[in-house]
This record gives sequence, C-alpha cells and structure tokens, in this order.
Amino acid sequence: MSGTEEGPGGRTLAVIAAEAGVSVSTVSKVLHNRSDVAARTRAKVQRLLAQHGYPGRSGPAATALAAGGLIDFVVNELDGAWAVELIRGAEEALDAVGMGLVVSAAHSRQGRQGRRWLDSLAARRTLGAILVVPELDQDEHRELRGLGIPFALISPADEPPEGVPWVGATNWPGGLAATRHLVRLGHRRIAVIGGPPHRLASRARVDGYRSALEEAGLPYDPALVRYGDFTNEPAHRHALDLLRLPDRPTAVFAGSDQQALSTYRAAATLGLRIPADLSVVGFDDLPFAEWVTPRLTTVRTPLAEMAAVAAGMVLQLLGGSRPPSLRVEVASELVVRDSSAPPPAS
Amino acid sequence: MSGTEEGPGGRTLAVIAAEAGVSVSTVSKVLHNRSDVAARTRAKVQRLLAQHGYPGRSGPAATALAAGGLIDFVVNELDGAWAVELIRGAEEALDAVGMGLVVSAAHSRQGRQGRRWLDSLAARRTLGAILVVPELDQDEHRELRGLGIPFALISPADEPPEGVPWVGATNWPGGLAATRHLVRLGHRRIAVIGGPPHRLASRARVDGYRSALEEAGLPYDPALVRYGDFTNEPAHRHALDLLRLPDRPTAVFAGSDQQALSTYRAAATLGLRIPADLSVVGFDDLPFAEWVTPRLTTVRTPLAEMAAVAAGMVLQLLGGSRPPSLRVEVASELVVRDSSAPPPAS
Repeated sequence: MSGTEEGPGGRTLAVIAAEAGVSVSTVSKVLHNRSDVAARTRAKVQRLLAQHGYPGRSGPAATALAAGGLIDFVVNELDGAWAVELIRGAEEALDAVGMGLVVSAAHSRQGRQGRRWLDSLAARRTLGAILVVPELDQDEHRELRGLGIPFALISPADEPPEGVPWVGATNWPGGLAATRHLVRLGHRRIAVIGGPPHRLASRARVDGYRSALEEAGLPYDPALVRYGDFTNEPAHRHALDLLRLPDRPTAVFAGSDQQALSTYRAAATLGLRIPADLSVVGFDDLPFAEWVTPRLTTVRTPLAEMAAVAAGMVLQLLGGSRPPSLRVEVASELVVRDSSAPPPAS
Repeated sequence: MSGTEEGPGGRTLAVIAAEAGVSVSTVSKVLHNRSDVAARTRAKVQRLLAQHGYPGRSGPAATALAAGGLIDFVVNELDGAWAVELIRGAEEALDAVGMGLVVSAAHSRQGRQGRRWLDSLAARRTLGAILVVPELDQDEHRELRGLGIPFALISPADEPPEGVPWVGATNWPGGLAATRHLVRLGHRRIAVIGGPPHRLASRARVDGYRSALEEAGLPYDPALVRYGDFTNEPAHRHALDLLRLPDRPTAVFAGSDQQALSTYRAAATLGLRIPADLSVVGFDDLPFAEWVTPRLTTVRTPLAEMAAVAAGMVLQLLGGSRPPSLRVEVASELVVRDSSAPPPAS
C-alpha cells in the first residue's frame, strides 16, 4: 500500500474510504473517535487507518489531515464577476491549507445531460462543500445532510435555514450607509430601486434606507420605493418612472451595480447629468463600478471574504471542531466615487 | 476491494494509481496497451486493474473511464468576468461526461503560503489540466510535461508553444471586422488603442485593423495607433491624446472592453458625445458591455467556447486518442450595439 505517498491528508482518507466502502466522513469520524459509527465499520476503518500509518488524532491538528483534499464549491450560475469573486475567496482560503476547490454550477444542470449537483457531490465523496445555491428545497436539504459531509451556505440575499452554517453580508447597514451618505450630501428626495421583495436582502436594504431617512427627520414616501429583480430592464423602467415624477428624486439608491447602470441609462435618456442633476449609489462593487463614467459610488459586498469565511467554517467542521458561530454576516462597506454629489440648487 | 463502488472511472483509476505508487497517466497507458511502461510496473498495474474489475480497453469508449474523475483548471488570476466565462465553459463540457473541475489560481500563489500550482497538480495526481497561464517559462513547461497527464493551454492573447495542445481566439479577423464596421459607417480617421505590443493578440488585431484600412484605400497613420496594456489608465491617457489631436479621429477601436470604457471617460472629459461625435468599438464582450450607456459595440471573444474546446482536447487525449488538431482558434464575432454610428458631418 502506498497511499501515504500522496502525502498525509484527505487524499489518503479518500483512498481508505474507497477501500472500506464507506464515506470520507465516516473515516473522519473513526479518526476522531466519534461514537456514531457502527462497531464493525469502525474496526475495518481502524485497520486501514493503521495500515496507512494513522494513529488516532483529534482537535485542531486534525484539520491538517485534509491537506491535499478537495472541497466542492457549488454555485447556482457561473456568471459574471459575482461568482468569480466568491471562487477566488474560497480558493485562496483552501490553498493556504493545501486543499483544492472543485467548482460546479447547480442551476444550469436542470434539463441538461449532466448529473444533478447533489449526485455529483455524492459520487465524488467530497470532503466538504461550500454552496451558493439560493432557495434549496426540503428534499435537497435532506439529501445534503444525508451526504454526511460538512458544508456551509453563502447567501448574501437570503435567509439562512435553521441550524445550517451560513455566511451572509450585512444588508441593513449597507442600505443605511448608502442613504446616510446621500442625506449628508443634502438630498431630501431619495428613491430606492431594490431587488425582489421576497428576498430578505432587498427588504433589509430598504429598511436601512428607511432608518436613515427617519434619523434625519425626512419623510418616507412609498412612491419613491420600487422593487426590481437585481437586473437591468425592470430597473430601467423604474428609473424612468421615478425620474419622470413631477417632484422627481435627486438621488437613486439602486439594489445592485447593474441596476445602477440602468439608472445611468434612464438619466441619459432624459438628459439628466450624473451627478450634477442626479446622484446614483449602487450595491455590490463589481469591477466595472470603477470603469464606468462617472465612477460609481456603491456599497461593497465582501464576496471574497464571505467565501473565505465559509471555507474556514467547513475546515473547522472537517477538523471536528465547531465554528465559534454558525451564522456570520461579513460587513458591507460604502465606497464613495463620482456618481454622488450635492443635489442641484432648486 | 471496493473501489469500483465509486462507479467506474477516473476515481477508481486514481485509487489504483495510488495503490501502485504510479501516476494516473501510467495506469491509463497500461489500460490502453501503450508500450511506454516498464514491464514490472505494467504487471503491477494490470494486477490491480483486474482486481478492480477492469478488462483491457481502448478507443473512444475509454473516455467514459474518466467519469467521476477530476480535471484541473489553472488560471493566472481569478478576477473579473473573463475568468468566470472560461470556468463556465470548461465546467459544462466536463459535467456533460460526468467529470468535475478543480479550479485554482496560479499567479496569486507567488510569495504566498500556498503551494505552487504545479506542486498542487502533482500532489493531486489529477487526470488532466486546462491551463490559462500566459508566459509559462521553460522550467514550468518541463515540469508540466513531467506530470505525464494530458493538458491544453488556453490563451486568447499569446503564441502557443510548439507542439502543445492550444486553444486561442481569432484576433486578426476580430480587428478586421471591427475596423470594416467603422469604415462602412463612413469613418476615415479611425484610431486604435491596442494591448501590449509584445502580445501576439495585440499585433494581430492591429494588423486586422490595417488590412481593413488598406482594402478601403484609407491611409495607415501611425499617429492613430497606440499600445496600452488592456487596462484603464494607459488607455485613458491614449484616448485623451488621440481626441486632442488637431485632426482628431472620429472612431476608436479599443483592444478590450475595459479600454473602451476608458475611451468613454476621455470623451466625457472633452465633452464629446458617443456615438454622435465619436464611435467606440471594444473587444471581449464582457457582460457589462450591454449595461453601459451607450451599449458597447464590441468583438466577442468566445471564452466559454474556447474552454469547452480545450476540455474536449483533454478528454480526447485522456481517452488515448489524438484531437483532430492540436491548435484551434475559435472565431471572434462582431456585436453591433449603440456606441458606433456614422461620423459627424464635417
């Protein structure tokens, strides 16, 4: 047997798991003296572990066992700069402990010849998973737990399921910061174009907006609050609507950078200059935010950091320890550029 | 032995390779009766293959052996929409045959605590690799070949090394199409802001531009030809320079969408309207090209298709067959939007 030639770690654990006909998670449980393994399986795995030179171990050092192993990263859609920032954060965090990242798309699997992502995860007997798959249904949740591997969800825009390791971004403070910035510049009529109203993130951002108005003693005007779907066309229509109001807003807080660019387009259509006639603040801070003219003031969603935190949770769980918190929100941050300025003198 | 419980495929080959203390490539060679394996190694591997239920196989069916296996995708930098398009294309192509994609970044490894990407590849004993790593040095090429696994390079902007499976994009035809489009709109003074002059892609695009001028009987004016580095600031300076010429160009063909946005900025600074006063054509067609105002006319680099072609080459090589061609350029395509129009009447 030369499995240890691969270096210590998940690789060898995977070989042992294959030889024993059990999951890597089961091998890990035996290695950490967990009680929930059948006696016969335990004996078989212990024999193989001994053949591969493993004494019993536990605690933080166990994390090192994963070196050389792979963690799955499943994202709903592989599109845009959004996904690549998450991949980058997870890849760097895992590379730092000598592990690799298997990337796959979940959504595009439907109706295609490929396997369902959960089947792929099961077939690979991966060591753990980081999931960016909004709106998992109950069956999927059950299957996921059934794999017996540590996992963490990342969802900047959704409510975390009960008891599931989860990383989000701070949305309410983001809405607050964006709106406070506009209030401090002197704006009194501030519109908001949010994401879908059923997404918690949309509601949190609009509530942050509302709180900033309240603390400044400004009225909340429902006519200035619109919900889109984070993409272009609905945002473009809302922006045109808002900018055609008799008492038009002097600033728009958009729910995504993409929606902010739709607002740029609506302003151009109506001959309004940004920021002289209209201030615009986005959300996300994707790379193009500083390439467009004017450079976009926006709220940065810390995607790479979120993925790194999620990777850290999976590694801790894999090492047999419980992360200090199973629900973490990484802070958003206002980035002031050129699309926001004092309102025009009226 | 229960390795075959993992399903037939690369997973099992990896287990066999680990047990035999050889590379997956060697196992594959034995499986396909290739001659370049030492007799003693061959016997050992054949014994293990038999234990795992493998008869000898060869030809196209051998590709299916890889099901469940993993291919590495190494990209210089995990940044922007550029990388994610490539990942998407490779992931879809591999998922269709039941394989997974391990994604890692090469450049960011330097000087960090992580391992070098070549070491990671070696440690993982991956089945194959798709590499987007421009300017590999000779040592890296030697190490890469030394891994004994099939691989393909993707480089839309560089010259392929001799005899190496390689996928690029058509740059000369892209430059030709972009410039022809502007010529047909009536432009006579067309500037070009290219990428770095030492990159073949830059020179090919500028040569395509020059050919379009020649076929239209228009003079080639070196004062209108600038080289940047595909990013913003140099492009912005070049654009300002060009637009301040006494006999300024009425159109700019930029070497990237990002450079096109820098041209947008320069035009705004000088009070020039796009496309009424100045037409702009980009290169790449990243998602933001249709979000900006005006929507950007650009040459689409088929990133996802290029990655799918590269994945196909690796799968063919893995299955023991030689791809029909080891050097493929996937066609670029002009996408006409709103940033190009006839020149202003002079």
